[in-house]
Amino acid sequence: MNSYIYKSDLKHLTGLCNVPASEITGLLDMAAGFKKELITGSPSFDATLKNKRIALVFFENSTRTRFSFEIAARHLGAGTLNFSASSSSVTKGETLSDTIRNLEAMQVDAFVLRHPSSGAADLITGITAGNVINAGDGAHEHPTQALLDMFTLREYFGTIAGLKVIIIGDVLHSRVARSNIFGLLTAGAEVGLCSPVTLLPTDPDRLGVTLFTDLDEAIGWADTAIVLRLQLERATGGYLPSLEEYSVHYGLSDERLERIQKHLLVLHPGPINREIEISNHVADRIQPPGYSKSMLLEQVTNGVAVRMAVLNTLIAES
Amino acid sequence: MNSYIYKSDLKHLTGLCNVPASEITGLLDMAAGFKKELITGSPSFDATLKNKRIALVFFENSTRTRFSFEIAARHLGAGTLNFSASSSSVTKGETLSDTIRNLEAMQVDAFVLRHPSSGAADLITGITAGNVINAGDGAHEHPTQALLDMFTLREYFGTIAGLKVIIIGDVLHSRVARSNIFGLLTAGAEVGLCSPVTLLPTDPDRLGVTLFTDLDEAIGWADTAIVLRLQLERATGGYLPSLEEYSVHYGLSDERLERIQKHLLVLHPGPINREIEISNHVADRIQPPGYSKSMLLEQVTNGVAVRMAVLNTLIAES
Amino acid sequence: MNSYIYKSDLKHLTGLCNVPASEITGLLDMAAGFKKELITGSPSFDATLKNKRIALVFFENSTRTRFSFEIAARHLGAGTLNFSASSSSVTKGETLSDTIRNLEAMQVDAFVLRHPSSGAADLITGITAGNVINAGDGAHEHPTQALLDMFTLREYFGTIAGLKVIIIGDVLHSRVARSNIFGLLTAGAEVGLCSPVTLLPTDPDRLGVTLFTDLDEAIGWADTAIVLRLQLERATGGYLPSLEEYSVHYGLSDERLERIQKHLLVLHPGPINREIEISNHVADRIQPPGYSKSMLLEQVTNGVAVRMAVLNTLIAES
Repeated sequence: MNSYIYKSDLKHLTGLCNVPASEITGLLDMAAGFKKELITGSPSFDATLKNKRIALVFFENSTRTRFSFEIAARHLGAGTLNFSASSSSVTKGETLSDTIRNLEAMQVDAFVLRHPSSGAADLITGITAGNVINAGDGAHEHPTQALLDMFTLREYFGTIAGLKVIIIGDVLHSRVARSNIFGLLTAGAEVGLCSPVTLLPTDPDRLGVTLFTDLDEAIGWADTAIVLRLQLERATGGYLPSLEEYSVHYGLSDERLERIQKHLLVLHPGPINREIEISNHVADRIQPPGYSKSMLLEQVTNGVAVRMAVLNTLIAES
Repeated sequence: MNSYIYKSDLKHLTGLCNVPASEITGLLDMAAGFKKELITGSPSFDATLKNKRIALVFFENSTRTRFSFEIAARHLGAGTLNFSASSSSVTKGETLSDTIRNLEAMQVDAFVLRHPSSGAADLITGITAGNVINAGDGAHEHPTQALLDMFTLREYFGTIAGLKVIIIGDVLHSRVARSNIFGLLTAGAEVGLCSPVTLLPTDPDRLGVTLFTDLDEAIGWADTAIVLRLQLERATGGYLPSLEEYSVHYGLSDERLERIQKHLLVLHPGPINREIEISNHVADRIQPPGYSKSMLLEQVTNGVAVRMAVLNTLIAES
Repeated sequence: MNSYIYKSDLKHLTGLCNVPASEITGLLDMAAGFKKELITGSPSFDATLKNKRIALVFFENSTRTRFSFEIAARHLGAGTLNFSASSSSVTKGETLSDTIRNLEAMQVDAFVLRHPSSGAADLITGITAGNVINAGDGAHEHPTQALLDMFTLREYFGTIAGLKVIIIGDVLHSRVARSNIFGLLTAGAEVGLCSPVTLLPTDPDRLGVTLFTDLDEAIGWADTAIVLRLQLERATGGYLPSLEEYSVHYGLSDERLERIQKHLLVLHPGPINREIEISNHVADRIQPPGYSKSMLLEQVTNGVAVRMAVLNTLIAES
């Protein structure tokens, strides 16, 4: 079941910054077909990536993203190779470029790369003939996460154009936020950002977004919210408020949602810090009438479908 | 070659505590069929788990158990996904429940879980529609280890009923001991426990076992011994004697076996601490006439067969 | 496409020390056939190792060697199992022999072993009925690396016999150097070693090699150079010059190559320390007329072909 095909000009997917609307629509349409088969329980797909080798090259820890790509690749018949950089292999001093060149020389056809440095994915497009898919590079982009968010929104609302999307949290350091801003604006949404003023970008006009520092006001404006994960392990700078303070002012708490009484679709890339940036009720999609509805696990399923579409589009025909 | 089938009511296998004798017999019978094919050298099985995805979710280090499940799953045609929790992914703060829910949303059909907390496997049966197999949870249960021990005993003695089984070592903290106690008693064996008094459970009557503190006496009583691994890496409490003292009083040493002159089938779940809880002779099944016979490596082979039976029974028909 | 067959007496490959020339020729010839198919872009091979299980048992970190074996095994249809020893599993205290015996009891057919102790691979040939392939043991041997170096030389020069090969670097501690010395001499090459005097072996006559301490002189003598990696992570002894000093005297620098003006084929096992033992120009095979030509990435591709030949020869018929 791989009937849907669209003509793509993409060879790599390192970000959504310059990806045109037609490509995004094509990928989401293909993903919709894959999802239909996925949720049958015993999905079966054409092995369009048979005899293709995909290296999952992760220089940062990841569970869900790596698994999601691995499952997506296997559904399409590709072989996957897991490369997880430990501290010790880095001490051997090999450059990222040399690592990629070496893997390519073993007939690896595509690279799914996660790396702590912004721009790492773009860098390696210049040194390999294979396809490069960015699975998160520093504070730069995480395009497949944004595509799955957009897929989830399109499926729920029918369209993305005209939708008011508020992104809540540490926008300044978030590759998820950046990719969503680029993708959502391309697809015709309005994007708002809400966070402590120290975590907002300083050039909202250039980005084409609206800034909020008051969460009630932001929710009042929005149709849907993308809640970013508070990266506790990175929260060492002086710009961050205390967890309690953050939770009170920027957490999607029960108290707040009860007070606002607005229907609001809530997305979160995971993993969740429960009762910090998002309450248990919202995370677990307990939904009293008039309350918010969460789609967190649907996002995960959609992630597999979207990554299948990306892999299939970039690799199968190349 | 998967001809053997029995009607099971099991959906999960989190322990042997409440598993009826008929289920245990069914699993061991099926495992016997699998073993016959396994030892042919180039085994070939029906792919009863084709298109099934099994996540091996290990929050503790393990070689043999993870490998054994992985090999068993592949023999039946399932895809396996390795999730090894490192310290860093734990610091991201995701709960076990959220991890499992996320994997399930990627169409994982079954979870093989090892976790340091007792009760972890039972916990997740409440949050996933997939099958849950406990590969060891804290000091609680390790049911497939007990099943492979029982398989080994049944194969050697013909039956388990009436057998006198002595379990030697740190019984108090051993999930292997607990699962064996439950399973062996259900199958009609008599169970004795032998260890320093500080490592014995305080409720032998409730458990239905006989306690020994003198190893010679215990061996005199028993037909077979399950020697537990002394968990050196956990031996920090004050309840443990010194290694030398332990080895003298509770080790299966050459000197002791020579003196007792009793035929005694010896099992050990591995990995072995040589010359501490078990001597090299016993471990390596060097068997002078009248001495003990060790089945340690047969246990490992039987472990693959037993895990195939468990996976096939729980997942194939569900 | 596995048409090439030769009659081999090898069951294990733990080193090239006592491997006769006929076996080396047979392996390289078979590898040549595999390479032809590999570089077609979508290679397809007979599954000669179907239903075989190969355990990749790595007690030291490795990217390229493990990947190379994994890809080679999959091309031939074998299942691979990754065993990476972390510090924690070592603290459980299991011996190497017991680990191997346990894996074998799970019907593992062959072991690819990397281990920090010299002689580890030979040790386990005595305790398993499976095939053993040494992927590097301490400072002893790394035979598949030497075979791929020899493959690369044979392909480029047409023959190995009579070739003058200089090995540059920390020869004393290098398993790559040792395997190359044995293999190249067997195949009829002349071998020279060039390094600081503290890193040269003391028995050149017994080895049958020529010693150099001046790199210009060595290059003048040689047709081709195998540059060893300077193992920065091990460079703690007092016998090593400073990096700057080493680089000036023993690095293949642009300045040196420009001055010498000799055509010299350069091999390096990787990973590279750029601008230390080898310059960027040489590493990246930028080749002004009359300068050196580097084959570093061809070596990697050849490594897959050579490992396919080794696995196919040892395992398929055994």
